[in-house]
Amino acid sequence: MIKKAVWIGMALAAVASASAQDAAPASESSMFLFSTLLLLACGATTFLAAAGFAMIEAGLARAGNAAVACLKHIAAAAAVAGAMALCGYRLLYGVEPGGFLGAFERWTPRDVDPVGLGWASAADFSFNLLLATLAALIVSGALAERVRLSAYLMFTAVFAALIYPIGAGWAWGGGYLAGAWRFVDLGGSAVVHAAGGAAALAGALVIGARRGRYKSRGAPPAGDAPAAALGALFVAVALLAAIAGAERSYAAIGDAIAIATRLANAQLAAAGGAIAALLMTASIYRRADAATVVNGLVGGLVSIAADPLSPALWQAALIGAFGGVLVTVGGPLLDRLRIDDATGAAPTHLFCGVWGALVVPWTNADASLLAQLVGVAMLVGFAFVMSALAWLVLKYSIGARVAAEDELAGLDSSALGLGEEPD
Amino acid sequence: MIKKAVWIGMALAAVASASAQDAAPASESSMFLFSTLLLLACGATTFLAAAGFAMIEAGLARAGNAAVACLKHIAAAAAVAGAMALCGYRLLYGVEPGGFLGAFERWTPRDVDPVGLGWASAADFSFNLLLATLAALIVSGALAERVRLSAYLMFTAVFAALIYPIGAGWAWGGGYLAGAWRFVDLGGSAVVHAAGGAAALAGALVIGARRGRYKSRGAPPAGDAPAAALGALFVAVALLAAIAGAERSYAAIGDAIAIATRLANAQLAAAGGAIAALLMTASIYRRADAATVVNGLVGGLVSIAADPLSPALWQAALIGAFGGVLVTVGGPLLDRLRIDDATGAAPTHLFCGVWGALVVPWTNADASLLAQLVGVAMLVGFAFVMSALAWLVLKYSIGARVAAEDELAGLDSSALGLGEEPD
Amino acid sequence: MIKKAVWIGMALAAVASASAQDAAPASESSMFLFSTLLLLACGATTFLAAAGFAMIEAGLARAGNAAVACLKHIAAAAAVAGAMALCGYRLLYGVEPGGFLGAFERWTPRDVDPVGLGWASAADFSFNLLLATLAALIVSGALAERVRLSAYLMFTAVFAALIYPIGAGWAWGGGYLAGAWRFVDLGGSAVVHAAGGAAALAGALVIGARRGRYKSRGAPPAGDAPAAALGALFVAVALLAAIAGAERSYAAIGDAIAIATRLANAQLAAAGGAIAALLMTASIYRRADAATVVNGLVGGLVSIAADPLSPALWQAALIGAFGGVLVTVGGPLLDRLRIDDATGAAPTHLFCGVWGALVVPWTNADASLLAQLVGVAMLVGFAFVMSALAWLVLKYSIGARVAAEDELAGLDSSALGLGEEPD
Repeated sequence: MIKKAVWIGMALAAVASASAQDAAPASESSMFLFSTLLLLACGATTFLAAAGFAMIEAGLARAGNAAVACLKHIAAAAAVAGAMALCGYRLLYGVEPGGFLGAFERWTPRDVDPVGLGWASAADFSFNLLLATLAALIVSGALAERVRLSAYLMFTAVFAALIYPIGAGWAWGGGYLAGAWRFVDLGGSAVVHAAGGAAALAGALVIGARRGRYKSRGAPPAGDAPAAALGALFVAVALLAAIAGAERSYAAIGDAIAIATRLANAQLAAAGGAIAALLMTASIYRRADAATVVNGLVGGLVSIAADPLSPALWQAALIGAFGGVLVTVGGPLLDRLRIDDATGAAPTHLFCGVWGALVVPWTNADASLLAQLVGVAMLVGFAFVMSALAWLVLKYSIGARVAAEDELAGLDSSALGLGEEPD
Repeated sequence: MIKKAVWIGMALAAVASASAQDAAPASESSMFLFSTLLLLACGATTFLAAAGFAMIEAGLARAGNAAVACLKHIAAAAAVAGAMALCGYRLLYGVEPGGFLGAFERWTPRDVDPVGLGWASAADFSFNLLLATLAALIVSGALAERVRLSAYLMFTAVFAALIYPIGAGWAWGGGYLAGAWRFVDLGGSAVVHAAGGAAALAGALVIGARRGRYKSRGAPPAGDAPAAALGALFVAVALLAAIAGAERSYAAIGDAIAIATRLANAQLAAAGGAIAALLMTASIYRRADAATVVNGLVGGLVSIAADPLSPALWQAALIGAFGGVLVTVGGPLLDRLRIDDATGAAPTHLFCGVWGALVVPWTNADASLLAQLVGVAMLVGFAFVMSALAWLVLKYSIGARVAAEDELAGLDSSALGLGEEPD
Repeated sequence: MIKKAVWIGMALAAVASASAQDAAPASESSMFLFSTLLLLACGATTFLAAAGFAMIEAGLARAGNAAVACLKHIAAAAAVAGAMALCGYRLLYGVEPGGFLGAFERWTPRDVDPVGLGWASAADFSFNLLLATLAALIVSGALAERVRLSAYLMFTAVFAALIYPIGAGWAWGGGYLAGAWRFVDLGGSAVVHAAGGAAALAGALVIGARRGRYKSRGAPPAGDAPAAALGALFVAVALLAAIAGAERSYAAIGDAIAIATRLANAQLAAAGGAIAALLMTASIYRRADAATVVNGLVGGLVSIAADPLSPALWQAALIGAFGGVLVTVGGPLLDRLRIDDATGAAPTHLFCGVWGALVVPWTNADASLLAQLVGVAMLVGFAFVMSALAWLVLKYSIGARVAAEDELAGLDSSALGLGEEPD
């Protein structure tokens, strides 16, 4: 360890002699290689969210719906890839500066750095594709046990081709929120999570509650709690990767410190969310509730995503903990309103996402509460209204909901033929 | 983001002033560190395939065979490690240039760069070990519910010590296919997947179908569809890593662009495979089939592995989609021939692997269809014949198949004693 | 591939002209970026251990305890994060040089390199946090089906705030074992695994066996063997990452070779452990035992962790194989002593961890058996005595064990209300 003191001494001297961001640079090739690596590795890890959300839905849905839950996630991830490649990615960066919409940006994977940020366009495409997948899959769980597979896949394609990228372009593509408001959402609390959660809420309102959900006593028991817990841990790893990768650049000592700080804060926020949900459910119901703790862990990460860089560790833990509180009270609140969100997608992603975006000015002096309010209102409002329209069109065209007898039997039987006598 | 414009400007100037491959290099140390990192990270991620294949088999096999399925995969991965360390890795790079076999190459993990490619030999060993593991584990699923554990492990050792590395040496170790034919298989469509699938097919033919498989009506129902879906998502992540890592070098801006392009194409191919399988099964059977979609996702990745670099995104999606079609029609075709491939290993890995290698000339002007045909024929033929011989030897020596009553009871009971009264 | 020969030639010349450790360095920025990346990537991957241990416990425990098993792991990981941030991390590096305890070291995530090793303190915090999580979660499985959730979480907080970091500081923070004895434990065989295993053993002794465990015939059958196998594969990936990341520095060609060598050796040790456990159980019980093979895989990695760098591949395989033997004989030995370790945590982590630390002098000439004996005795003794004290305090205050009827019904029902009629 002594022998490393020599070169680290050089690095520290460089850091001391200038602000970290401007310290002795790596070669331009190395910068490109490092930043591309960051996007690719974080993007690939973010893909674990597809497995994670599938497991959460399969675990929290009634038995007899798990296979369809998994199929939905695989097919939806595929639909997002197609929609982003054809349309979404071009819209995201095609927005005119400071504007709301723009031209279709042309690109190919081999383009070097089409938007001037320092990496191959294919790496940026992969990372954005996986953020869009994250947002789109949030919708699935809320509608579990009753949504029609074909309607869900069509909604997913529309969401990934139009709804998500237009909103993301306002904040991340240089559009209105970036230009006029300096809206801060580094890791997607509002852009990804609140937008996905709003789409989930719109779908739950249009499609309606599961049959008998508010007639019998309480929620149906979870089919497979360990699957849900495993899924939540995957989603947690995926969100850590999304939070780290959203730094985009890994080219100077300051970037490395920033990414490490993001991850440490995110870990504390996740811990805060899980512990708050555990203590809340233990004190309210006199016993822990596994599904709520699982969502608290995820909700803590959603809450810190908007700005994982500015808070101190204790602030990050508090931000996450309040996310855990929102998850705990949000589910019963929706149930009181007779809005049936089967996996708690709206409390976890919408409520915590809004909270995460609004709390940014507490720790980040460059953010203004007004800008954050405007950004959240626009992103959530746009996603909600457009998604509700899309669901209504689907409802009155091909139908958004399965037949009553299929719902009671569980979708695995009607959609996949599982459990039937083979022909 | 403005501040990054400076150095990216330098990088872009460098790219513009020369071909990307030769652009302003990182220091030689950085190149070594980057390339080693690529191999290690991708190798470690490829190991997820062991978990993935185990879950696919455990999920698609009848209940009562899942524990043995998992045990087989853990023990087989261990056997591959031993076989590759003792013999396989030396054969792979020991082949004489342009030849068929060669001397046993001596190496130790600390060797720097034994084959002149720019990384530590231990990193290359790890990566090759995990590709061999991938190939060997393909065999397991096809023989589910009836293969003898000890016979399968012995076959795996022989496959990893001799069959796989000799073929891989022809294409990747500088042997006959590389020297005389310039055979193109960047990511292992033929070298890894078709060889593993051919070995699986040979095993299924020698061992025969599950008892009653073609007497009762249709395939036995899957025990646990969510496990299979989770497994497929793990295999997908593992294959993305294998496709990225097969670039081998991560030392210049051109390498970074190439790897990012590989990943973007692979994502589209996976999407194409899953969607094609979904649409095919939905239109043929009037309902989706979860197992087929799961295999379609993997089949899309197998199809693009041979050349994930040359296609445009739409070409990658089409290549993957035709892989999804092969998966959908391949299973019923084998069933018509009374070849019982329990998890669809042959359609997914053999059929898609052959397709992937043969389609390379469509997008890659440096590849010739004749060379691809010769390469596929040699690799598949060698793996099939050698594997059939190995299975025949096992069948007529220790026996390759469990007793009838054990098969009917499920292997978990006979091989592991699960479900019995404890003594 | 030819074109890469040029720069690798430069690198090899540099290696040849000096010892690898001192070879032509990357720029100081690149060194910092590489080393930070190593810690962050390995830390994030190590987090898979939380999912892995949860799955192992959920899989090996009786049905009706799986949901609590998962909840315990999520909540415990959160508790460790809080305890390490508040106290543990400061103690670890606050130890006075060569001493036993020290001042509370102050730090913030943005500190650059507080201990002079060449990375951002947040990256080092994340990595240490995940090693502490690894150690703390070992305890959970041993106490499955009977420990009180609140008592376990309180123990976890004490363990992560005080017990683990004080011991780790002796070996890794520059304390007594590092200063006076040059104790070698590169990857935590003793510091992490034996300490966690000793805490598990202390808990099992204080809390006592599951009711009826030694009255009925044998262990209760595993509820879900595939879940346990999946968990073991996750733990294996996590331990590979911990072993690689413990190199800490990734700044020169010598570091890359060392990390690649560590991984190759670890893969062989894992293989040795799994194969030894398979052969042992197959020859003793005339059938394989899935749980033992699963623990053998992990035990092989625990055994090699102390020094994954010095052994040759065959030595690594042997070291791991003897770990597999210890796992196989350790479980029945504890049962003979009526110590009820539900998931085999003590054989896998304590016995193999002690073995791994003591075998270091076989392959590493810089280690002395006496120093290793002193280090193991101090680390295991301290963790065992302090943990036993903590468990005794919990036992006689809030109670460490659930009520008899809750235990018989399974904890999912009493702690979480699963399976009951909803209110």
